Parts: sequence; structure tokens; C-alpha cells
Amino acid sequence: MKFGGTSVGSIEKIQKVANIIKKKHEEGNEIIVIVSAMFGVTNDLKRKSDSISRNFDSKELDVLLSSGEQISSSLLSGAIIDLGIKARSWMGWQIPILTNDNYTSSQILKIETSNILKFISEGGIPIIAGFQGISPEDRITTLGRGGSDLSAVAIAKFFETDSCEIYTDVEGIFTTDPSIYEKAKKIDKISYEEMLEMASLGAKVMQPTAVQASMINDIPVHVRSVFSEKSGTTIISQSEIDYKKVVTGVAYSKNDAKVTLVGVADKPGVAARIFEPLGKNNINIDMVIQSAASDGKKTDVTFTIKRNDLFKTLKLIEKDSQYLNYEKIIHDDKVSKVSIIGAGMVANPGVVYKMFSALGCEQINILAISTSEIKISVLIQEDMTQKAVKALHKKFELD
Amino acid sequence: MKFGGTSVGSIEKIQKVANIIKKKHEEGNEIIVIVSAMFGVTNDLKRKSDSISRNFDSKELDVLLSSGEQISSSLLSGAIIDLGIKARSWMGWQIPILTNDNYTSSQILKIETSNILKFISEGGIPIIAGFQGISPEDRITTLGRGGSDLSAVAIAKFFETDSCEIYTDVEGIFTTDPSIYEKAKKIDKISYEEMLEMASLGAKVMQPTAVQASMINDIPVHVRSVFSEKSGTTIISQSEIDYKKVVTGVAYSKNDAKVTLVGVADKPGVAARIFEPLGKNNINIDMVIQSAASDGKKTDVTFTIKRNDLFKTLKLIEKDSQYLNYEKIIHDDKVSKVSIIGAGMVANPGVVYKMFSALGCEQINILAISTSEIKISVLIQEDMTQKAVKALHKKFELD
Repeated sequence: MKFGGTSVGSIEKIQKVANIIKKKHEEGNEIIVIVSAMFGVTNDLKRKSDSISRNFDSKELDVLLSSGEQISSSLLSGAIIDLGIKARSWMGWQIPILTNDNYTSSQILKIETSNILKFISEGGIPIIAGFQGISPEDRITTLGRGGSDLSAVAIAKFFETDSCEIYTDVEGIFTTDPSIYEKAKKIDKISYEEMLEMASLGAKVMQPTAVQASMINDIPVHVRSVFSEKSGTTIISQSEIDYKKVVTGVAYSKNDAKVTLVGVADKPGVAARIFEPLGKNNINIDMVIQSAASDGKKTDVTFTIKRNDLFKTLKLIEKDSQYLNYEKIIHDDKVSKVSIIGAGMVANPGVVYKMFSALGCEQINILAISTSEIKISVLIQEDMTQKAVKALHKKFELD
Repeated sequence: MKFGGTSVGSIEKIQKVANIIKKKHEEGNEIIVIVSAMFGVTNDLKRKSDSISRNFDSKELDVLLSSGEQISSSLLSGAIIDLGIKARSWMGWQIPILTNDNYTSSQILKIETSNILKFISEGGIPIIAGFQGISPEDRITTLGRGGSDLSAVAIAKFFETDSCEIYTDVEGIFTTDPSIYEKAKKIDKISYEEMLEMASLGAKVMQPTAVQASMINDIPVHVRSVFSEKSGTTIISQSEIDYKKVVTGVAYSKNDAKVTLVGVADKPGVAARIFEPLGKNNINIDMVIQSAASDGKKTDVTFTIKRNDLFKTLKLIEKDSQYLNYEKIIHDDKVSKVSIIGAGMVANPGVVYKMFSALGCEQINILAISTSEIKISVLIQEDMTQKAVKALHKKFELD
């Protein structure tokens, strides 16, 4: 049972979580609990280190940030003990959770199970501080983004647990964002791959790095709500799912921007020359379209990037304008990306046609397209986002 | 070098402390730093555990509270590293600092020196989290009140350091409270015993338990300010001090209350019967006066206690009124205790007379008296406190 930062975000919530654990314990389960820092604590600690130095030492940053989970795990243990149940907090170094020395984003190498198993055999509930481990030189490490989810998956792996439950503040993964379309439905089972492609819908629920870890180790993860006893969404191997529908979910993102270089000389290597400086500056290119001009000498190159990289991108391209010799740059940050995701797609040709016709019926213009085996994304005008999501949700029978 | 909670109470102050350490390091010193939690952090954590349970598990409380020093030691290490100097934080378990398993107020049994000495020999400055250690079962312990001062004294002992410097927000120990008498002077040297008796003046500067530890191990402690390069007060063995003055300082406390049982039967064991329930309820009796009545059958018993124990004390005595059979109880919480402290007193008879005459000249009525080898305390009306302090400070040539 893993509880995230919002689930332990206040004393009242910690006591609520203690009662959820108590119930599970009284049902006869042997439980290992993993807990994140209380909501806001990690960011607050990070702000402190940032105000000392933008280059704050990474080893000390790990000592600093890991205190957040030390606080929440001791408070939760205390709350459970107060309910009359044996419990104790375990820091990474006490178990130990052995990681490499890649401070601030370490990988778990091994988890010693003996201390924890002994404690469980004595009737205790171990409350493990998530996000942290210990390096070969006995210093505190942290696991980076999604750290506590990664801890939970690794615990499930090394202890070979029967289940891995991620408790959060939503009921699971939905077919689309319920806040923009009220007919969104909770998904019972979703494959690791689909979950990864559902970035915009899934990332709030479970960090992609942790989904990858569960995929690699084939550990089914049950994502569920602390506020409800209803089962949530199980993230599981594709082979375990009986696909009845072509599309599993409709996702969207509003943080994209589109850039077009008009009239670039159509010579070999020009695309590489455009994208090389962007890559070197950690700017991710998402969609790319290159359309040859009628005379065969000039071409237009369109690509999308994260919206907050737009300014940097334009600067980098203008710096290289001499060589690229384009006629002009057009950019548009009023775009959004809408995607349909589904492992069922592979076996169903005609999905693209069906998608385009649904959007066409609504007079939605497609600015760019990208496809993968289980996802088709289209770039559209931002103000059409909600309309597009509804149309696709209905078209692919998710309503 | 030990830095207290107010000295590291903000990011700016942590950076200031980093610069003080840098300077000391560049002067060629080998330094071990001990640091308290940032001001307010420990109380904030304690409030969290209190709101979960008044009986919050003591082992988990230690895990919780020790995170405060984890935060400050990593921030300070990061700040020093940012100045280009090798440093690292050390938690109790990393050194290790071995304590007994008396959670929330553990005693230090041993400090391993090898890891820290190795780090110093490599040119590093260890920043040790104060207040914490590790129990025989490898769990985090804390040292109770005055914890970081205790850590500093123990470090000085086990590493046999040349000095032990406690940095605080005052310049040292003063002959009296400068906020009530502007002629108070900084004391250069004070004995451990005097320091202990100076409770009201000294406790804000260094916790009595830590003073006791330095006395037992005869470790001179230099208390000084982070805001000034001037030397502060050295707390040292009495034999190292050349006493020129009879009195070293004038202290006062305003948190006392006086209780009188009028007309108690003057039979053996009655005083014990009065004080037994108080002792059992952790109420400390300070001064006691028993005055036989003229008929020899009844007596008045007067004693002083901490002011916030007054209500509890009255309840306990009233509960036993049947046996004690007193005529009435009188209580007064508008009293204060003024003390003169000085190791030079022993060799100077007439100090009591001199004290009483100074107070008599100012028309200050003495309600009770208690004496020790190096201290004379009088109980007076609270509104006379400042007047009394000034008169005694002047009389004993401390101005």
C-alpha cells in the first residue's frame, strides 16, 4: 500500500490513512506501507536549497529532501500505533534499500528483505519512507521524480507481494479528463504501454518512470482512491486484457507550440541542422512534418515543442538563420494535441479514417499528425480541444 | 563549533554561519560543526505529533524530531560547499553516535571518531546533526532538552578537541539581565557551578544538562555570539578562575509562586506529608520555611513552586486537607526570586548581611530566603524585582 503526498497532506488525512491500513490489517493481510512526503513539504525544502544555491550540492539535496518522508513515515507510524496496532517507520538506510550513487535520481539495486519480514512476522506493519535509499558509501540517496511510486514497485518486486496498491486522490484512470467531459468513465484495466501513452491523463496518478519500472518487472499496479472503497484501475500486461474496444482513452495536452520554417532550401541534412541545436539544449521535438514545395527546391518544415520552450527555440533557430536560409518563421502557441490511445488499435485498420471523419464532422482542422502502434495524435487549434475530445470519446464508444 | 536554532533560523543566517565557518577554516583550524534545527522547526514537528496523539510513540517521536537537524545540517553543508569548501552533513547513524535506548532523552555512550577524522584529514568540514544518535537496535534517538549542546560537549570529549565553542545570539553570560539593567557587564569566565546557579541568566545561552555534562568531563565551553567577533564567556572549572569579586552575577526569575499553610499541627512527619504528593506529581519545591507558632502546637509552612504548578499544588493539598488539618492556605503568585551568585562568596562571610542591607535601604521586604555555597536567593514582591537587581548589582560592585 503506497500513499501519496496529498493522501498524507494533513494530520486528519494521516489519521484517515491509518484507519484504511488498520482495516486492511484486520482483514488478515500482511502489509508493507510506503509513504510520500506530506503535500508541499518537498517543494518547500527544494525552495530552501534553491535560495542557498542554484547549484546546491546533490548529495546534500538528497539528505535534505529525504527528511520529508522521514516526517510523514514517523507521523503515520505514530498514528497507527495510537490505534493499538504494532507499527514502525523504516528509513532507507534501516532496511536497507540499496541504490547506486546517482544522487537525486538513483536507481534501486537491491532491497534487503530480512529486517522487514521479521517485523511483519512479529505482527508489525512497516511504514517505509518512500523516495529514499542508501548509496554504496552509506549516504542518503533519492530516486528523483515519481520516487515513492518507484519505491512501491521495487518493494512489490523484492518482496514478491501479491499486490501493489497505489492510493491517490482520484478513483483511477479515466477514458478522458472528467473535468472537460462528464461522460468520462473509469477504466478497469489498462496496459503499461497505454498508461505511458496516456501521459496527460495518467501522469497525475502515477509517474511514467514508475509505470516503466512496473512494466519492466511485470508488476500489476492497482491505482485507487483513499476516499472510496471501490476498486480503481489496474495497470497490467497487455496480454492480461481482453480488448473489446479499439480505443481505451482520449487524452489531450495544452502545453504545445507549433513552429514552421517556411521556404527552407531542400538539401540533405537540413532537418538535422534545424534540430541539432534544439536537442543539445534539451528541447524535445514532438511532431514533425516536412512538405516539399512544388518546385522541388524549397520546403516547409513544421514541428511541435513544449510551449515553454518556444522562446528558446526561436532564439536558437534565428541564431542559425544564415545557414538555414529560410524565408520566414511562423509560430503558434494556441494549439493543443488530442490523442486516442488503445492497444486494440493494432488489429483494427481504419482507425485513422474514423478519427479524421469524427473531427471533420465537427469542422476541426488538423494541423499535424503523429502515430505509434497504440496512439494517434493530432494537433488542432486550442479552442477546439473540448469539442474534439467529446467527438472522439463518442465515436470510439467510450461514452 | 556549535550553532543553535536562532543562528540557523533562516537561509540568510545559514549563509552567515557558513561564512563564519569558512573564516575559521581558512585560519588553519580543523573544525567539527554541530548544528541545531532551524528555529521553530522542532516545535512545529512536536505540534504535529501532539495533534495525532498526546501519547505519541516515543521512538517515532525521535524519528520525527531528528529530521529538524537533518534539514539544517544539509542546508548548512550545501551553503559551505557553495563557498568552495569541502563539507558534508553527518547524521547520528552515519558517524555513529551511540546512545542508550532511553528514547526522547537518550544518553550518549560513545562516539566513533574514525569516519569523521578521516573526513577531516581529507580537508573536509563535517557538519554534524545535533540532538540525535542511534540506539543499540539501530533506531534514531534524541537527547532531550539541550540536545545539541550535549552533542557539542560529547563531541569535544570524544574527539579531545582544543576548544568547544557554542555560538548563539547573545555575546555571552552577563552579570545580570541587560534588558532590565543597562549596567550589566559581560562575564569573561564563569565556573560550571555558577553557570548552573545562574539558571535565569544562563539557561537561554546553554542548557543546564549540557553545562552539567561539561562540568563532569571538565570541558571548557566558550559561549559567544554569531554577530560579533568579540570573545564571549568561557565556562570553566572554578580552580581556573581568579576571583576578585565576591559576587559574579545577579539573577532573577519571575515564574515562582508562594504557598503558605497556616496553622498546621506541629507533629513529626507533617512536612513530608505535605510534600510527598507534590513530588509524586513532578512539582518541584524550591524554598521552604517552617515557623513554629508561639504555643508550640501549630506551625506555618511556606514554600515556593513554579508559578504554573500553583493550581495543581492547591488541588493536591486540598485533597489531603483532612490529614493535614491546617487552618487555611494563602497563596501569592506576584512574587519573584532574586539571587546573587558567586564562587567568591565562600571565603567572604558577611555577604548575607550586605545583601539584606542593600535590599533594606530600598525598602524591599524579604518573604523567604534560601542559600547554597555559591548562591543566596530571596523571595520578594514581583514589582520590586528591577529595583532589587539594580541595588544588588551596585552593592557588589558589578556596575
